[in-house]
Amino acid sequence: MIKVVAKNCVLEGRLDDAIALYKELIEKTTKEKGCIKYELFQDINDPRILTMIEEWENKEALNAHEVSEHFIRIFPLLKEITEKDSDFRIYERLL
Amino acid sequence: MIKVVAKNCVLEGRLDDAIALYKELIEKTTKEKGCIKYELFQDINDPRILTMIEEWENKEALNAHEVSEHFIRIFPLLKEITEKDSDFRIYERLL
Repeated sequence: MIKVVAKNCVLEGRLDDAIALYKELIEKTTKEKGCIKYELFQDINDPRILTMIEEWENKEALNAHEVSEHFIRIFPLLKEITEKDSDFRIYERLL
Repeated sequence: MIKVVAKNCVLEGRLDDAIALYKELIEKTTKEKGCIKYELFQDINDPRILTMIEEWENKEALNAHEVSEHFIRIFPLLKEITEKDSDFRIYERLL
């Protein structure tokens, strides 16, 4: 199993637009093979920080996700309304 | 339920020390009331990045954790062997 944490800060005034895009992305992605969890979280101290926490069966499933029609279409739209300093990390469980 | 993501970068050559500290912290913390998950992940592209991903029943349980004997003792030891730019965030699930 691999875990992904993808943190973004949404531009001022674009939170509703970002949530709508995430909603569609989540609906489509959770149907993908190898997707165990694909959930969106909001920072309780800074509502513009939206972070996807994901679980995938393996790296191959994540790779397939990143070339899916919905990811290729929606990801650039999210990039347009989020700050440049996003943080995307792929993890394996250690303890 | 609240989610915590606490990302740290361990100083060069101190990974084993950090893992030993996390191990004790995890053993003690998972016995706390209100702790649902308390797991350590390692960045597959940068082994010095260690991130705790936690689930707590509520904010009160997390507050109690932060004044526990083991947290107060172990957290400063971890701080000594990690970079200054840690990232600690508390989240609620949005989607």
